[in-house]
Amino acid sequence: MRQRLPVETYTKGVLAGDRATLSRAITVMESSLPDDRALAGQILQNILPHTGKSIRIGITGVPGVGKSTFIESFGVYLTSLGKRVAVLAVDPSSKQSGGSILGDKTRMEKLARDPNAYIRPSPTNLSLGGVARHTREAILLCEAAGYDMILVETVGVGQSETLVKGMTDFFLLLMLAGAGDELQGIKKGIMEMVDAVAVNKADSGNELAVAKAVSEYRQALHLFPEPPSKVPIQVVACSALEGIGMKAIWKLISDYYAQTSEHGFLQQNRQFQRVDWLREQIRQLLEDRFYENEWVKKHIAAMDEAVRSGEKVPGEAAADLINAFLLNSAKS
Amino acid sequence: MRQRLPVETYTKGVLAGDRATLSRAITVMESSLPDDRALAGQILQNILPHTGKSIRIGITGVPGVGKSTFIESFGVYLTSLGKRVAVLAVDPSSKQSGGSILGDKTRMEKLARDPNAYIRPSPTNLSLGGVARHTREAILLCEAAGYDMILVETVGVGQSETLVKGMTDFFLLLMLAGAGDELQGIKKGIMEMVDAVAVNKADSGNELAVAKAVSEYRQALHLFPEPPSKVPIQVVACSALEGIGMKAIWKLISDYYAQTSEHGFLQQNRQFQRVDWLREQIRQLLEDRFYENEWVKKHIAAMDEAVRSGEKVPGEAAADLINAFLLNSAKS
Repeated sequence: MRQRLPVETYTKGVLAGDRATLSRAITVMESSLPDDRALAGQILQNILPHTGKSIRIGITGVPGVGKSTFIESFGVYLTSLGKRVAVLAVDPSSKQSGGSILGDKTRMEKLARDPNAYIRPSPTNLSLGGVARHTREAILLCEAAGYDMILVETVGVGQSETLVKGMTDFFLLLMLAGAGDELQGIKKGIMEMVDAVAVNKADSGNELAVAKAVSEYRQALHLFPEPPSKVPIQVVACSALEGIGMKAIWKLISDYYAQTSEHGFLQQNRQFQRVDWLREQIRQLLEDRFYENEWVKKHIAAMDEAVRSGEKVPGEAAADLINAFLLNSAKS
Repeated sequence: MRQRLPVETYTKGVLAGDRATLSRAITVMESSLPDDRALAGQILQNILPHTGKSIRIGITGVPGVGKSTFIESFGVYLTSLGKRVAVLAVDPSSKQSGGSILGDKTRMEKLARDPNAYIRPSPTNLSLGGVARHTREAILLCEAAGYDMILVETVGVGQSETLVKGMTDFFLLLMLAGAGDELQGIKKGIMEMVDAVAVNKADSGNELAVAKAVSEYRQALHLFPEPPSKVPIQVVACSALEGIGMKAIWKLISDYYAQTSEHGFLQQNRQFQRVDWLREQIRQLLEDRFYENEWVKKHIAAMDEAVRSGEKVPGEAAADLINAFLLNSAKS
């Protein structure tokens, strides 16, 4: 087992804004060892009163849209305003290729050297659920460490966007202009989630195509129902490479934050997210307790075999196992 | 509560191939009432020895690619060969729009009138997990009722493809030609799942674009690792509207079935899928038992409030609830 510090050392270090301790505390959050989970819970409970003061921003977009360049550019702009910026990634490892797709500090060289920025590489070898849990916990730790802007990066595939939407205040979709029909590739499910669209790569020579795309997205967005935040979805052009549009994006995020704070949506949404997180934790912990149970460990292989061979229906097998587990966990 | 039949009536009716009883049995599978779940388990256990004799085919593609037209055209072709075809849909209701996107019989008029075809509209108001469970169970019922080709349709978004991949023998991706870069819109994650790609709408006048797309996909697929089935991924052109390519697609599916049956991958894959299904059932049933528990029902609102207000960390709240639940379920 890796060496751990006493819970007070983590708590004090994080609250003092010590980067090394913050990193070590996030590592504790990423662990699934029972002792580490207990330690993680204590650290979180201690820092909880010092959380919630940041703006949590989710950033998504298909591979190639320039998410890393955008985060570098936007992050540097924010630190120039005196903000303290933390960058996290929700990015499950590809099941087949094994490694982590994103999360490499080397992609954000300038931001990585900025004393007011903290970049946490995405963990490898975690399930989607594990990544989500750890990222939620990392957001709280970064807030306790004094970061007031949390950027959560996610690759634009499947479930990870829903997870990031569920842990942020503001969700930004990066898009590209060109490539035929401007609206192709926009999954309706994603559009219903975003608070703003930024059409990236408005670089020299590409301005017209981007302006056209911006106008088309704006028109398309009229067809969508009013978002629950009541703040209309904005579409802007930007060039992460040339640093264009960063001010406009910051303005729309800070306006969104001000408006939703005032009419209470921001707070309600965070309350809802916390209860949602509790539901997830219940699901995860029920499974952990089940699979760690000695009776289950002893008997699951035989039940697997009965199901594998087609002798028993999975639902019946699950019911038998769980009935025995519940009886058994009482005794221990 | 809706009226239910005795378990023997369902079993005998399904095994006799009675369509009305099959439909009623699937309705039992869709229910989440505890009595219905018990009934569902008994029906499934009874019919289990009569399952497994079909070819289970998953069909996916973005909205607009022509999935319904394809399934109608392919289904009619299969019944003309003397096959009995069942069509199921894995298609979670859109959270925001409420209704079911797919699953309407009226989209497949000819197939719906075919005495050798059975179309089950997709259920509304079910979670993704619920849809997946019910579809797996519906596959078994359709097999017991004598259908030897099961077509499982899924809309090309997010998690549902992974679910359908996990319950079928063969996974077909429908694509369109044109619209700029032929490879745009192919999510790497999907390509790693499919057994064949059919480029649809090879209708009169569009043949050249389709042929170009077919050739480009074939080249791109060379870059992918060998699939676990060891059968190379095929790319074909088809026109669901004009009925072109149905024979070729059937041939590649039946070849796949023959090859994977012979070297055992088909059987191994199904065994793996069954154990995977058991894991899902365990997860679901653990949650059901937890939320149905009297102690939990009485105390969860207070814990929700502690988490909502930011007083308690979700992980700690979950641990408190689950410890009490496990102690408590022993007593009852």
